[in-house]
Amino acid sequence: MAVCALVSKISQVSGRLCSKALCPANTAVRALSCTGSRSQLHRVKGAGVLTGQVDRFGGVTVNLADAGLPADISEGAFSRLLQDSLVQWKSEGKAAVWLRIPISLSRCAAASSTHGFTFHHAKHDHSVLALWLGEGKSRLPGFATHQVGVAGAVVDESTGKVLVVQDRNKTKNAWKFPGGLSEPGENIGATAIREVFEETGVRSEFRSLLSVRQQHNHPGAFGMSDMYVICRLGPLTYDINFCTQECLSCKWLDLADLATTGDTTPITARIARLLLYGLEQGFDKIDLTMEELPAVYSGMYYQLYHRQLPPTLKP
Amino acid sequence: MAVCALVSKISQVSGRLCSKALCPANTAVRALSCTGSRSQLHRVKGAGVLTGQVDRFGGVTVNLADAGLPADISEGAFSRLLQDSLVQWKSEGKAAVWLRIPISLSRCAAASSTHGFTFHHAKHDHSVLALWLGEGKSRLPGFATHQVGVAGAVVDESTGKVLVVQDRNKTKNAWKFPGGLSEPGENIGATAIREVFEETGVRSEFRSLLSVRQQHNHPGAFGMSDMYVICRLGPLTYDINFCTQECLSCKWLDLADLATTGDTTPITARIARLLLYGLEQGFDKIDLTMEELPAVYSGMYYQLYHRQLPPTLKP
Repeated sequence: MAVCALVSKISQVSGRLCSKALCPANTAVRALSCTGSRSQLHRVKGAGVLTGQVDRFGGVTVNLADAGLPADISEGAFSRLLQDSLVQWKSEGKAAVWLRIPISLSRCAAASSTHGFTFHHAKHDHSVLALWLGEGKSRLPGFATHQVGVAGAVVDESTGKVLVVQDRNKTKNAWKFPGGLSEPGENIGATAIREVFEETGVRSEFRSLLSVRQQHNHPGAFGMSDMYVICRLGPLTYDINFCTQECLSCKWLDLADLATTGDTTPITARIARLLLYGLEQGFDKIDLTMEELPAVYSGMYYQLYHRQLPPTLKP
Repeated sequence: MAVCALVSKISQVSGRLCSKALCPANTAVRALSCTGSRSQLHRVKGAGVLTGQVDRFGGVTVNLADAGLPADISEGAFSRLLQDSLVQWKSEGKAAVWLRIPISLSRCAAASSTHGFTFHHAKHDHSVLALWLGEGKSRLPGFATHQVGVAGAVVDESTGKVLVVQDRNKTKNAWKFPGGLSEPGENIGATAIREVFEETGVRSEFRSLLSVRQQHNHPGAFGMSDMYVICRLGPLTYDINFCTQECLSCKWLDLADLATTGDTTPITARIARLLLYGLEQGFDKIDLTMEELPAVYSGMYYQLYHRQLPPTLKP
């Protein structure tokens, strides 16, 4: 018998079974029957409950910014209101409760924790707490779990050299490809180009995706996992003007030297050998090329990387 | 002149310049001169300041669980304590302040926000807030930005068929590869194998990485970005016992049919063509193979995926 998970699933194209409705960050939330602090206070005295938007999985989302709570509601008063609300939600068979809490009302997070709520995530000016009311283990979707870093290997095909840097803040000053963290909403190739420019002053353009590395428990990742993507870039400029805050040094180095030197890292040496192979036999031997394809449900486009298909098999 | 970012950087092997010390989740934090609520209360009355661990970037981390605060400290009292602490940290030229706040003391998050602190992230029973005190734009590292999903294309080479499912919760019931979200600490191949089994009941083994897709503003990702990886798997069992909660249907389908049917998604059709090409010409044409390599600094191993090198270029 297959084990099932109701949500937290990715589908082939369109993503998780987790619906919009289960995701409070994307849901316009209204406290339906609650319009001001006066009515809320009345409830706090015992007559009312919090109301929120119900999703198709049976989850309820309450945005405390819209719930008409008094700005100075006490932890005790909110706790009683939440207690009464939970009694009602449980009697209605609700599967889960999401609370979106403005930072100014954070004392409500403490009150919620006494009823079993935990932080799902927090960003800037609000936190989101969740409580699973359904049977068995929580099937609520998790929050972002990974950082994505991108490095750019800028290869000058005319000389067989590649652009490398030494980090300023490392004890072992190994030669490496410049790179950094992908910003939210930024494409892989854009990250590589931006980071190469920021660190070295060299302008470049995207050619292909070469390699993916997965690492866990990265010390700089707050306990999250780390995806690291290495791109092949082509140089548009050649003059180096490196960032002295970040880099100790920067130069164009022969790929053959990088592949064999002891002053590098295992990944860099490996990718140098891969690039040498590409330089000698054709980059089509090592590249994953990128194409944009339409997303079925959202109407947007996304970027897909894989080995190039022969012309006869192209769509 | 290259634009620089002090932290939030990934290096080739060992990760970000962001040090452990800038990452409160990984730092054992001590309030050095503060041992109990009595001394803290004394401070609250004006004599003292919060103390924390200083990192090599000039950031201070204070863990409120260890700061000796009274459990019932008011927002006003904490705000005054923080105000005095900020005056001191600024006079000392500190670059940033991190506050790790237990959920039960969440009212301190509200108080902190009045001094410019914002949520960096929150997990389970605590939140982390940050305030940049240095010059210019904040150079503090961000939190996790991506979800990573993995699909498994289980190819039966003896029949040319591949295992596909129809999601239960989609309006368009396209045939797709089973898959789901990678859990923290889980390797890509392990996610693919687990998800295939959970959805279809078929046991499989990892063969290669085929494709990477990047998508932003995914409706189920809480505003985060989405990395989606497609793996090639080999079947170990063939009997289907699919999850009826998640799937409407599941079957072994001819790759040639999947490549041409209208009842699928653009990505699935594309990967079906890629797999057909591999089936006919050899999977070495389309595969990124995986190897484990040692991490230079941590002493751990990580998984690296790229095109296979010819034996002469192997290390």
